[in-house]
Amino acid sequence: MNILLTIRYNGTNFSGWQAQSGKKTIQGDIEEALKNLFNEEISIRGASRTDAGVHAMCQLALFKYDCKIPLEKLPFAINSFLKRDIVIINAKEVSNEFHPQYSVYKKTYEYKIYNDIFNNPMLKEYTEFVSTPLNIEKMKQACQYFIGEYDFKAFCASGAMSKTTIREIYNLSVEKNKDNVITITITGNGFLYNMVRIIAGTLIEIGCLKYEPEYVKEIINSKDRKKAGRTASAKGLTLKKIYYNI
Amino acid sequence: MNILLTIRYNGTNFSGWQAQSGKKTIQGDIEEALKNLFNEEISIRGASRTDAGVHAMCQLALFKYDCKIPLEKLPFAINSFLKRDIVIINAKEVSNEFHPQYSVYKKTYEYKIYNDIFNNPMLKEYTEFVSTPLNIEKMKQACQYFIGEYDFKAFCASGAMSKTTIREIYNLSVEKNKDNVITITITGNGFLYNMVRIIAGTLIEIGCLKYEPEYVKEIINSKDRKKAGRTASAKGLTLKKIYYNI
Repeated sequence: MNILLTIRYNGTNFSGWQAQSGKKTIQGDIEEALKNLFNEEISIRGASRTDAGVHAMCQLALFKYDCKIPLEKLPFAINSFLKRDIVIINAKEVSNEFHPQYSVYKKTYEYKIYNDIFNNPMLKEYTEFVSTPLNIEKMKQACQYFIGEYDFKAFCASGAMSKTTIREIYNLSVEKNKDNVITITITGNGFLYNMVRIIAGTLIEIGCLKYEPEYVKEIINSKDRKKAGRTASAKGLTLKKIYYNI
Repeated sequence: MNILLTIRYNGTNFSGWQAQSGKKTIQGDIEEALKNLFNEEISIRGASRTDAGVHAMCQLALFKYDCKIPLEKLPFAINSFLKRDIVIINAKEVSNEFHPQYSVYKKTYEYKIYNDIFNNPMLKEYTEFVSTPLNIEKMKQACQYFIGEYDFKAFCASGAMSKTTIREIYNLSVEKNKDNVITITITGNGFLYNMVRIIAGTLIEIGCLKYEPEYVKEIINSKDRKKAGRTASAKGLTLKKIYYNI
């Protein structure tokens, strides 16, 4: 049977999702837990290769196994072999047609910023700290220029290999709460390598008044990575939701 | 001069506020930073002795020193000698009358609970995890019975030495956000040893329907620690604000 897991993790102490020999990774730890549980080597395939330090509230991973444990109990069974940084929150059977990349049609990420003169030690693993007071209105205005289907080559880390750099962003919003946490929420049909972090870095620079919101149009049109803002740090990023068809 | 520091800290990796030989404490780390900065042994006196694992957004600490650094720059200077778990956010001169305990007339604490079937690894250091779905309405109803001046002996850890166990609670509220985080906020003229954590534990048990909200009256009247709920874990607790007169 094809089993689809939904996974939460705190990425702080991991070298990202993907298994790499000699490194502690999310995939590696889950495969180890499955091996301990089932006494068998099992490979899982994730829907999103999150980078070192990036978190997830709903990563998806697929594996094939003739599981005798009722699926509603499987998360608890796997969790008993995992440390507290990774939590399996769901397991369900999916059809053979399900593909962890191609069946996914939409993803939502959150990027969190702590914006105050001094940092907040409680949020240091989950937010990028920015001490310059950010102009939220300018950041909100900038969002509209990202929404739509564009060639986002300027927002892709150099050296990345994608067939096309065209992506569609459905939603992009910026909210600040009373505790000085700014949350950037972005939903799109897919994201280029480092795309969310470069968009977050660009929005931060707009919030710092380095350039006007309208300048986003120019960055997109330029297709030039150097025109966009810096790549915001990994720890502020959380994979929030993955939408898929079976 | 009398210098009052305002301090934020993540208490996870500390044996509490108070300096103890051979243990890593908040007070100890700050005194060490002051020694490195001023080349002199300096003792600080905190307004609240937070336990191991408890966090603070606004702890206060007083010390005497003829400081040549402009006070608005002092936090940055001290922070340069501190690790990221402790952040000095303010330094100001106060009169000789100021006393870190007796000048304080009100304190606010927050207690955070993560209430979902599975834990959230991002919040594991700052929330108590409760997997039973809590009835928020019952918890809200229970709050009214705590507000006022009472003998809170039933909500005081046994063995604690206080002249009186009478305290006044001005405000107590329970809110749940969309991310399954429940925040209990409590303001009072002072709190007995473990009082906030025992109130949080009692509210959790009421949320689990172990007893009715009205039972709080009985617990208070009994003055019996055994009648109240369990002591909720330290990591969910944050010292949020200290109100003082100079």
